[in-house]
Amino acid sequence: MSEDAAPAVAPAALPPSAQSPHPRHIRLTSHSGGFGALPIRWGAVTARERGPLVGTTTNRAHRNVIGTHSGSYSVYRALAVAAGALSREHKADLTNTAPTDVIGPYPQWADPGKIVSMDPWGAEVAREYATELAAGYDIRPTIAVTKAHVILPEVIEAVQKGRLKPDGKLLLEGGAALVTKVAVEPVWYLPEVAKRFGCSETDLRRVLFEETGGMYPELVTRSDLDVFLPPIGGQTVYIFGDPRDLANPEVELTARVHDECNGSDVFGSDICTCRPYLTHAIEECILGAQAQEAGGRGGVGLVAYSRKEGRALGEVTKFLVYNARKRQVGGDTADQYFARTECVAGVQDMRFQELMPDVLHWLGIRKIHRLVSMSNMKYDAITGSGIEVGVRVNIPDELIPADARVEMDAKMAAGYFTPGAVPDAEELKKAKGRGLDA
Amino acid sequence: MSEDAAPAVAPAALPPSAQSPHPRHIRLTSHSGGFGALPIRWGAVTARERGPLVGTTTNRAHRNVIGTHSGSYSVYRALAVAAGALSREHKADLTNTAPTDVIGPYPQWADPGKIVSMDPWGAEVAREYATELAAGYDIRPTIAVTKAHVILPEVIEAVQKGRLKPDGKLLLEGGAALVTKVAVEPVWYLPEVAKRFGCSETDLRRVLFEETGGMYPELVTRSDLDVFLPPIGGQTVYIFGDPRDLANPEVELTARVHDECNGSDVFGSDICTCRPYLTHAIEECILGAQAQEAGGRGGVGLVAYSRKEGRALGEVTKFLVYNARKRQVGGDTADQYFARTECVAGVQDMRFQELMPDVLHWLGIRKIHRLVSMSNMKYDAITGSGIEVGVRVNIPDELIPADARVEMDAKMAAGYFTPGAVPDAEELKKAKGRGLDA
Repeated sequence: MSEDAAPAVAPAALPPSAQSPHPRHIRLTSHSGGFGALPIRWGAVTARERGPLVGTTTNRAHRNVIGTHSGSYSVYRALAVAAGALSREHKADLTNTAPTDVIGPYPQWADPGKIVSMDPWGAEVAREYATELAAGYDIRPTIAVTKAHVILPEVIEAVQKGRLKPDGKLLLEGGAALVTKVAVEPVWYLPEVAKRFGCSETDLRRVLFEETGGMYPELVTRSDLDVFLPPIGGQTVYIFGDPRDLANPEVELTARVHDECNGSDVFGSDICTCRPYLTHAIEECILGAQAQEAGGRGGVGLVAYSRKEGRALGEVTKFLVYNARKRQVGGDTADQYFARTECVAGVQDMRFQELMPDVLHWLGIRKIHRLVSMSNMKYDAITGSGIEVGVRVNIPDELIPADARVEMDAKMAAGYFTPGAVPDAEELKKAKGRGLDA
Repeated sequence: MSEDAAPAVAPAALPPSAQSPHPRHIRLTSHSGGFGALPIRWGAVTARERGPLVGTTTNRAHRNVIGTHSGSYSVYRALAVAAGALSREHKADLTNTAPTDVIGPYPQWADPGKIVSMDPWGAEVAREYATELAAGYDIRPTIAVTKAHVILPEVIEAVQKGRLKPDGKLLLEGGAALVTKVAVEPVWYLPEVAKRFGCSETDLRRVLFEETGGMYPELVTRSDLDVFLPPIGGQTVYIFGDPRDLANPEVELTARVHDECNGSDVFGSDICTCRPYLTHAIEECILGAQAQEAGGRGGVGLVAYSRKEGRALGEVTKFLVYNARKRQVGGDTADQYFARTECVAGVQDMRFQELMPDVLHWLGIRKIHRLVSMSNMKYDAITGSGIEVGVRVNIPDELIPADARVEMDAKMAAGYFTPGAVPDAEELKKAKGRGLDA
């Protein structure tokens, strides 16, 4: 941008170097990522005060984060450039891509410790940072909001059996459910992520570097960069009903937070309850959104789906554990369920629900009336973050596949919610999973 | 290991530094990853000649690859260490984790250019590298093979409608299908990956570093390390029938290679055909495995599922494109389908089928009798890699959701296989997707 073509709106956040064709190389603040980079003030009340996140690979001087966009798909983007299929100068044309629904801003957005693993302003970069975009900054959305019709065989069955009734609005004849859906990429504000895990920021940065085999040296060398875009999967939110109702504690909210399990969610493997619980939750969400209790206005439903395959251990480890469980002396029993995972992986679970409530706060949620989950870890994380939970909805017994009884018993004994009896040590030896040759 | 406790089997591949408590710091070969690291000879005939891949974060001197295990889940592993939940010294106890089925070795494994994005020996590290494991090397499986029962509502429906018949062996009463399933983590041999994409290895390394915002400087500084464990999702293979039959071109093979689409595969979004095509392929695989044509011995079925969400652009980009398609002047039509993706992403597709055939060669496949896919990119990649394809099976019209007609027409016009007429320019303007407010 030349100096005689200043924009009508003064770009308050732009450093002098961005306003001039001859950058003056002035370091602006301790939070600035370098010369020409815009400062980030995490937890600021407005998007303009917070400043945009710039993870561009084109103009390094503009970068104010560690890592880049699209989570692990940045590796595929690199392949596209290497193959000559994508220009490295390409900037996204964001025409017509704006969210179908405006989410927030909510008071939680202005608390730097409340949302630490996503960018609350990530859906509205085209609107909020128009000036900086016009000035040549490569700013990309980390959140996208759209509308969809979802058609699940289990929902169609619920309609056929009369458990769900099409209303032509939330649920159509034929079983399609209308949703607003939101994709969210991970954006970590490292000082507050460290607090969530009870370690120092310095330790978090060092361990992230060392335990990934040396990914992003900037984690240890650039303590002035506070924001990290990690190359991991993000999350997707499905909303049944009006997204604005999520922030109204008077409107009944039915919600499930679900961690990815490709083997069950897609392929219907019978060793766990993941898909049955997910589709049960969707049925509950539709019912809840249709409910007329709250003054005839209906409720709202939410499924937040996180890409944390195999307890965030990945599918190779998951399958190794399956083999160890089914081959151990005495067979696959609930009393050994967690032990086998720990032998192979060193931990029972690596999903860490500590960051999970962020997306709920982003949606403005203060109360979940019906939480469709039995996990004590999820419950503790949600309530610990200040969100009230009404009742907890367990998976109906008839939806638990026979071979998944082992997992279910083990989890209930370990603290998972159940309205029934908690299995004792003797009980845990009873349910036995199928062997590998059956 | 002390010098007076030498293993019974001489560890041929062990460098002197590993055999002595006082490492001599001798650089062994140009392919050695440093002092104490074992050499890798990609494409060697045996696992022992090839040597193990060591991506440990514990003893850096042992590392002979760039990156570490578990794809993008290495970031969660780091969080576990930072949180104090996982000891960084933990080594996997591989007791009872061995594959349920032995896959290979096949002649393709010994061709360094045939399998370049996975480790053919990755399932058998405990057996093949027992000596090195005993000597303290931290060697992990990158492949796991197990058995499962999968229960899909669409398969149950096919049984109820008489299209599929339970045989008590491959398909049970009630609709559970028996499978062998395999999880595979990405392992890239960079010299040959570069060849697949038609660029120099130096360019590939530089671009992988730059376009990820500086991930793994070793990509450019350590040209002696040829193997990269990228932090991306892997793939899962579902086999219907005997896995050994995959390598026998006389046995009829029905196969689909499927790229992840969470919105359809799990949630049944009606804007694309992903889940309908996948479940149709599973039905075809079961039918094919049951078929008695080939001398009464039955066939074999295969679904290879790759984690390449939203054409490897990620879900945020995918949803932005949905909005741009549905809001453009004239609405969502097939003639603009690819243009909208390119505006936002810079490319129409980033899945790159160039690496996809590797898993087929790992399974020993030489002929696919029935390929359940219409993608010309997949077909070209498979046949181009030397695998013969018999017939191609398109998705039946009645399985295409109404809103997915736009995508289907656009793809057929762009070269996707269809037994029917290819839509012309006029035809491409006809099918119109739903708007965002419907």
